[in-house]
Amino acid sequence: MKINPMWDKYPLIKHELGLTLALMQKNIKTDNEPVSKAILEMINSGGKLLRPAYLLLFSMFQKTDRNKIIALAAAIEILHMATLIHDDVIDESPTRRGMSSIQKQFGQSTAVYSGDYLFVVCFNLLAEYASDFRGIQQYGHHMNAILNGEMTQMVERYDLNISIDQYFKQISGKTGQLFSLATFLGAYESGNKIKFAKNAEKIGLNIGVSFQLMDDILDYTDNSQQIGKPVHNDMREGVYSAPLILAMAQHKDLFFPFLKKKNKMTDQDTEEIAKLVIEFDGIKKAKKYAETYTKKALIQINDLPDKPAKKALIDITRELLDRQS
Amino acid sequence: MKINPMWDKYPLIKHELGLTLALMQKNIKTDNEPVSKAILEMINSGGKLLRPAYLLLFSMFQKTDRNKIIALAAAIEILHMATLIHDDVIDESPTRRGMSSIQKQFGQSTAVYSGDYLFVVCFNLLAEYASDFRGIQQYGHHMNAILNGEMTQMVERYDLNISIDQYFKQISGKTGQLFSLATFLGAYESGNKIKFAKNAEKIGLNIGVSFQLMDDILDYTDNSQQIGKPVHNDMREGVYSAPLILAMAQHKDLFFPFLKKKNKMTDQDTEEIAKLVIEFDGIKKAKKYAETYTKKALIQINDLPDKPAKKALIDITRELLDRQS
Repeated sequence: MKINPMWDKYPLIKHELGLTLALMQKNIKTDNEPVSKAILEMINSGGKLLRPAYLLLFSMFQKTDRNKIIALAAAIEILHMATLIHDDVIDESPTRRGMSSIQKQFGQSTAVYSGDYLFVVCFNLLAEYASDFRGIQQYGHHMNAILNGEMTQMVERYDLNISIDQYFKQISGKTGQLFSLATFLGAYESGNKIKFAKNAEKIGLNIGVSFQLMDDILDYTDNSQQIGKPVHNDMREGVYSAPLILAMAQHKDLFFPFLKKKNKMTDQDTEEIAKLVIEFDGIKKAKKYAETYTKKALIQINDLPDKPAKKALIDITRELLDRQS
Repeated sequence: MKINPMWDKYPLIKHELGLTLALMQKNIKTDNEPVSKAILEMINSGGKLLRPAYLLLFSMFQKTDRNKIIALAAAIEILHMATLIHDDVIDESPTRRGMSSIQKQFGQSTAVYSGDYLFVVCFNLLAEYASDFRGIQQYGHHMNAILNGEMTQMVERYDLNISIDQYFKQISGKTGQLFSLATFLGAYESGNKIKFAKNAEKIGLNIGVSFQLMDDILDYTDNSQQIGKPVHNDMREGVYSAPLILAMAQHKDLFFPFLKKKNKMTDQDTEEIAKLVIEFDGIKKAKKYAETYTKKALIQINDLPDKPAKKALIDITRELLDRQS
């Protein structure tokens, strides 16, 4: 089982993430070999597993049945994979985590059904392990918000006048709500009071938003990533993120001629835009926002009871802000 | 609210199907106007609403909270719509129920998210109204089987040697399991014993299989349907159904030259095949199977307690076998 090296410093989390992956694998059992194979490869591709990790961490403020918590961690990562696979269908993305995407390898049909299948696996895990309807209902509520975020992003594609508020609404939905579901479930299902769980949910939202901001920044600054991801594909697909939106605000005339070419933009065009983004401080401004959200999360985490998990939460949340890839 | 005229003879069911549609509408609330509009149009397109109707009927053997039952009926029809929308993405089908499909009208992305969104709406209704985890778990179990059926159908496309057993496995999954989920939920959630609900589940499976057989037969015999559906599109897509499989069994050499053209088949090719299917008794043989499954269901229904719902179940199940469209 390949666990991302970022967890080497946290042996307990690393151990439980290993169990999470094993349980995910165990639950993938379709009669359909290509689908199973594709999903299993994706499980083993060494993703960061941040959502299950935060779920695990927020469950550690109480003594609780670890098997149940690990099953819920598996559910949340499986839900995340389902959304990734369907996003790749929509973006017609050829790659995912440096590998050929399911969509590219096995075709669109397999990708649509694989995503649907993972939704069901997630559902089954929740139905088996959630302690009450509250957890289940919360899941539905977040899924709703995640999809609304994704659909809003879809509708606002190629909107040259997209505001930073619209961007935040999109990412609060598509990324924030998945993180906040993870932190809520971890807190709630380990037997914490609803007040604690609602607080965990708020912290998760801030972490998720900061994480997405950093991800969008790294699209411009991380050269290593270009192996795994098509370069500035989002831009070509009309998905404009914080660095671009913030840089473009005062200088639309410079950006529009390139962006107007939409998916006909050449690599040179996107490179030109990337230069403009840096020139007009898009990265710096976006990083400021990420810092603000991380800081909010850290202040909230600081108020949590003093348990070993608290220290890990602080370290990891800080690390995510400073990461280079 | 447009209710299919097939329910005119059953005023109580018709009334509750009206409430079911109203509740479905009420639960479609996305920020995304195209998605909402597309889904609402589909809700009002006058489908037969068989799955919710069977759920309602199987809930009438006990006195129970009708609002709850209607919510679950809405959930089951919404789940059905979700699978239809994703099927249309996979088939790249231009039409659905005589209208332009969501896929065709709004593009593939909207269709993928619309289906996902409906899965979530269904999930939320179940989480709110199901009386315990048993119903929820059953739902997951059936969804799994439905998807396995659909994925098997996808993999077995263009298999010129597909057997009738393979076909039955496909339709037991994709159609049978949705019907049997409906009948199970109706029986179980109205407070019947698990034994009764398990029996209802079996009956639903037989009804669903018979229904799908008839649907596949009508693809060859119902001329009116050609307004709503592309003619023999399934054949071109490599999905071979009972009439074709049964006619082809002894005469593969006659069918193969046409079928081998796969999606390059012309309308003339598919017409030739349709003629061969009739010539070699594909319709007759498939009808025999449909009769067998309907008979099985009717014998099982006959053993149910004597309530008004029993009479309606018998009539409707018979009617489905004899329908011409």
